[in-house]
Amino acid sequence: MSAPARWSGPPLGPLAIIGTGQIGGSIALAARAAGAVTDITGFGRNSETLRRAVARGILDRAAPSAAEAARGAALVVLATPVRSLGALAGEIAPELGDDALVIDAGSVKTAAVAAIEDRLGGKAARFVGCHPLAGSERFGPDAAVPELFEGRICVICPTAQTLPELVERAERFWRALGAIPHRMDAALHDRVLGAASHLPHVAAFALAAAIGSIDAEGGPASLALRALTTTSLRDTTRVAASSPAMWRDIFLDNRGEILPLIDRLAAAIAELRAAVEAGDAARLEELLEVARAARRKIVPG
Amino acid sequence: MSAPARWSGPPLGPLAIIGTGQIGGSIALAARAAGAVTDITGFGRNSETLRRAVARGILDRAAPSAAEAARGAALVVLATPVRSLGALAGEIAPELGDDALVIDAGSVKTAAVAAIEDRLGGKAARFVGCHPLAGSERFGPDAAVPELFEGRICVICPTAQTLPELVERAERFWRALGAIPHRMDAALHDRVLGAASHLPHVAAFALAAAIGSIDAEGGPASLALRALTTTSLRDTTRVAASSPAMWRDIFLDNRGEILPLIDRLAAAIAELRAAVEAGDAARLEELLEVARAARRKIVPG
Repeated sequence: MSAPARWSGPPLGPLAIIGTGQIGGSIALAARAAGAVTDITGFGRNSETLRRAVARGILDRAAPSAAEAARGAALVVLATPVRSLGALAGEIAPELGDDALVIDAGSVKTAAVAAIEDRLGGKAARFVGCHPLAGSERFGPDAAVPELFEGRICVICPTAQTLPELVERAERFWRALGAIPHRMDAALHDRVLGAASHLPHVAAFALAAAIGSIDAEGGPASLALRALTTTSLRDTTRVAASSPAMWRDIFLDNRGEILPLIDRLAAAIAELRAAVEAGDAARLEELLEVARAARRKIVPG
Repeated sequence: MSAPARWSGPPLGPLAIIGTGQIGGSIALAARAAGAVTDITGFGRNSETLRRAVARGILDRAAPSAAEAARGAALVVLATPVRSLGALAGEIAPELGDDALVIDAGSVKTAAVAAIEDRLGGKAARFVGCHPLAGSERFGPDAAVPELFEGRICVICPTAQTLPELVERAERFWRALGAIPHRMDAALHDRVLGAASHLPHVAAFALAAAIGSIDAEGGPASLALRALTTTSLRDTTRVAASSPAMWRDIFLDNRGEILPLIDRLAAAIAELRAAVEAGDAARLEELLEVARAARRKIVPG
């Protein structure tokens, strides 16, 4: 069963995907299903990943470099870890045609958008910063699915340089993939996603590491830990299975927002710890009530 | 559609449920569906909760006290917050018949089992400590469902005093509810569940509180936070919607295990923070790899 061809009118033309993991691969699959592009070329530094993306039919062909993938493309998608985006933009810049559109899919926008615009030089106006709020803890081309963006918000962060017609083209593209475009200032994006996504990942990675340190000690507690997996452990640590390279870059690129957020998390843990240590039932219940009320406000339903 | 009547032979007799929330209510519904008991009487300190449990058909009748609910019961289930279990055991002790079985469903076992045995006095041998690894962040009788225990482990913690035939009877009861009994020493249970369940709850409550503190500041970040809910935020904070009274008691009753676990979590967060602050990409990626590997070992599949 294929998705409806949501793209109206002639397709944009050839699509180049730089970085063929879950996000880049899903963009390729969804764009093809929607009828938004003609043929699809891809490039990635990991040759096995690239080979696998061709084998799965995500790409029509693999290119030997980012520049060659971008040559003649109507749309270039940069979908690699955020700290590599600037250098990639520099590599593809000479190949971009007069009507090409370049988008990214990075989870941090301020630093990445500035780096990409800088490296695109005179072609910076052709770039539209994008962040689809989609993707799971799985990664690589085998985790790519055409329905990944269905009903999901895609944050769009144009700058003063961006050509308005290309912002509209990017939004039309995301809508064809099932996403809901949502324009936002890059700085606000990074502040909000720091709280809504990056900090939960810090908590999940730290929690998995802490519990792993007990498991690593061996003995009966280690064995029983594997026998007694709880749904709370499963859900709370789910995103700790995410790509370390991707999250390394996100944490570093958004560190200005993330460091004070980590401090808030550490302070909240310290408050709970103090109430537990003091045996202060009333204070502890009050802290849990505040946390519960916050959760119900932030995540409705 | 009703569940198969898994209980073979004549039913145990009348069931008394003390605490008619999600767990107590689900035990009542599942026991009735399995044909394991005859009529069901309940008691709870919150009269509205108790009334609702009767209205939903969870209970045949409400009793005016724990003692009156327990009078003549073949099985008494204690399903209130763990720090209230000892006092309840003292209230029901005079009413327990010669063949009665008492079980609990508490998430901490060492302190609760000792308190219950102490307050049951000469009837301590009739008590079997139990902890079904089931239940969600929802609570109250409206969250009770008969299938809650299907395929879930129920940890059974007999002591030197417990009558072996009653341990077997308790296990037979849990199997009739669809659960898988798993005998374990109470101290080991508390160590393992401290890591597998209690620490994830600490992390989730603290994360919700930290993000809530941003939301509470208002302004555009607050508005955007509600618009951009992510699956990572949803899953990582899910259990922060749990009952504050229940978790207050669990954290306090298992504080000997939980405090050092919180310290491990705080240390893991501090390590991630230091790598982010230093901009040490190699160290950060290494920490994330270790966390990811731990998560994959602890939560398989």
